Amino acid sequence: MTRAYLDFYRGRRVMITGGLGFIGSNLARSLADLGADVLLMDSLIPDSGANFFNIDGIADRLRVNIADVRQESTMNHLVRDREVIFNLAGQVSHIDSMRDPYTDLEINCRSQLSILEACRKNNPDVKVVFAGTRQVYGKPDSLPVTEDHLVRPTDVNGINKAAGENYHLLYNNVFNVRACSLRLTNVYGPRQLIRHNRQGFIGWFIRLALENEEIQIFGDGSQVRDFVYVDDAADAFLRAGASDAVNGKVFNVGGTEPISHSDLVKVLIDVAGAGRARYVLWPPEKKVIDIGSFYADSSRFRQAVGWEPRVPLRAGLTKTIEYYRAHLSAYLDEPAPAPSTVA
Amino acid sequence: MTRAYLDFYRGRRVMITGGLGFIGSNLARSLADLGADVLLMDSLIPDSGANFFNIDGIADRLRVNIADVRQESTMNHLVRDREVIFNLAGQVSHIDSMRDPYTDLEINCRSQLSILEACRKNNPDVKVVFAGTRQVYGKPDSLPVTEDHLVRPTDVNGINKAAGENYHLLYNNVFNVRACSLRLTNVYGPRQLIRHNRQGFIGWFIRLALENEEIQIFGDGSQVRDFVYVDDAADAFLRAGASDAVNGKVFNVGGTEPISHSDLVKVLIDVAGAGRARYVLWPPEKKVIDIGSFYADSSRFRQAVGWEPRVPLRAGLTKTIEYYRAHLSAYLDEPAPAPSTVA
Repeated sequence: MTRAYLDFYRGRRVMITGGLGFIGSNLARSLADLGADVLLMDSLIPDSGANFFNIDGIADRLRVNIADVRQESTMNHLVRDREVIFNLAGQVSHIDSMRDPYTDLEINCRSQLSILEACRKNNPDVKVVFAGTRQVYGKPDSLPVTEDHLVRPTDVNGINKAAGENYHLLYNNVFNVRACSLRLTNVYGPRQLIRHNRQGFIGWFIRLALENEEIQIFGDGSQVRDFVYVDDAADAFLRAGASDAVNGKVFNVGGTEPISHSDLVKVLIDVAGAGRARYVLWPPEKKVIDIGSFYADSSRFRQAVGWEPRVPLRAGLTKTIEYYRAHLSAYLDEPAPAPSTVA
Repeated sequence: MTRAYLDFYRGRRVMITGGLGFIGSNLARSLADLGADVLLMDSLIPDSGANFFNIDGIADRLRVNIADVRQESTMNHLVRDREVIFNLAGQVSHIDSMRDPYTDLEINCRSQLSILEACRKNNPDVKVVFAGTRQVYGKPDSLPVTEDHLVRPTDVNGINKAAGENYHLLYNNVFNVRACSLRLTNVYGPRQLIRHNRQGFIGWFIRLALENEEIQIFGDGSQVRDFVYVDDAADAFLRAGASDAVNGKVFNVGGTEPISHSDLVKVLIDVAGAGRARYVLWPPEKKVIDIGSFYADSSRFRQAVGWEPRVPLRAGLTKTIEYYRAHLSAYLDEPAPAPSTVA
């Protein structure tokens, strides 16, 4: 695929749910630059990744609507004139999902029905790209993991994300609301939440390195993961949104080279010139939902739309550290208040 | 396994959710005969399979508590002293799930969390056997279908049942609430709902044969299914409830010989000495969620607990027709009012 998928977005009416969050805001940046008509939707749930600073510099080139995807009449209105919906709103903490499974169910499962029902009734020609997760696979039988691997989630979050993903495929197959799911592995980069450590370890490790703190590695650090730089993740959404070859399908969106936790931390400390590693025992509540080593085979998605990850880990971490060094307070303090245009 | 699994239930405190329904009430009958302390729970949702006539003759040997599995404080109380819970409450209509996905979600997905959270907090030593469904597989890649087949449901009901099943495995693995899931194929036999045609075709076909009506077969009738007689299904639950070899696992519980729709109808008409077949085009709303041919490989369950289906289709249909001929009005009229003991 050539640049055609980028040109596709010129003047295109798109919506991003969870648009003030990490991946959503980076995607919004690309879409604004491509000349799309961008509507961001976000509910500003405390402790989520929503942050008005994430749209600093592009806020005048898009619209923000604060609302909750769980609210059906809201969704019925907001989906109406959109051509592509990037459906990224989600509760992403595995630990929180185990402590409060009902809220995770509401956000990651039931709300997907609200969105899809709204599309079916009010805008059946829309295209929906869902942010899935590698968490649905659970502990892999073999590596790398392809889309033919069983879905066998190990936590509430993975179960609800799997159901939300299945709804998308169903509405594609049964109601012709075109939809697909991108099963993202560990995404990292600028604009990720680093205020607390309940949304995956990579953002938290980056914060600890920035603050020259000790980075705790669970167990012996031999577990392997793959990491996707957020610009590559945003590019995956752009390609999927512009393609009808992906409809009704799920795709792994994995990183460049798999790397062990211990090597990851070495690279991070080296890039940051700060932080130090310490090996500690697994906390029981984390161990019991841990999935061991994981990395994805993304060749199905590459074949479908030509995507591949282009930013190597070291380069991505370098850009990430630079970004947070320049804007750290916006990510450590309480979320910035809404600018007056949307207050 | 010998009779030990039957002796296990003497004096055993068990609960059946959906206990006034088809499979639940047949299972209750076995448990009452085995001398178990049986608590049936049912919410009497209209158009569900709940029917007080289903416990005719055993009502004085068990307790009935009318309540809804979605109600958390109710569940917190009811699970307290139970040793085994047979978790059969569910919305079983595929068509209804597509018309009202939220209710299906509440019953088949969210309520499973209520039950499991109640067990985790109030009775973590309980054993839970969940009534899963072959519907989670969707359209099979190959036959017979084993438990290694991808979960790829084609309707809302299948998605929510898959999530409900996954919760059970999760609570087993993470919280040590012992649980397993039996993925039942098409179950038939006495005490099934036959008042309407939205709960699978087998009960409806039986009613049409009983009333000497025309039985409509969609398409060319070449689709294959396997059928489990309800006594065999009840035996599967008894074996799973008494075994710790099944914890954290899913098992297919399939029927005897696979048979095409057209041959099934021939056998049924022959057994009933009534009814007639007619081939018609697929209704679009059914075709779009149809899964083609399906039959299950149940060898994993046989190896784990020694179960196998023992009632051949013709014998099972014969018993079924006899049962409904003797009690037809109890299944065609509105549900019988509650006996005074539970009113």
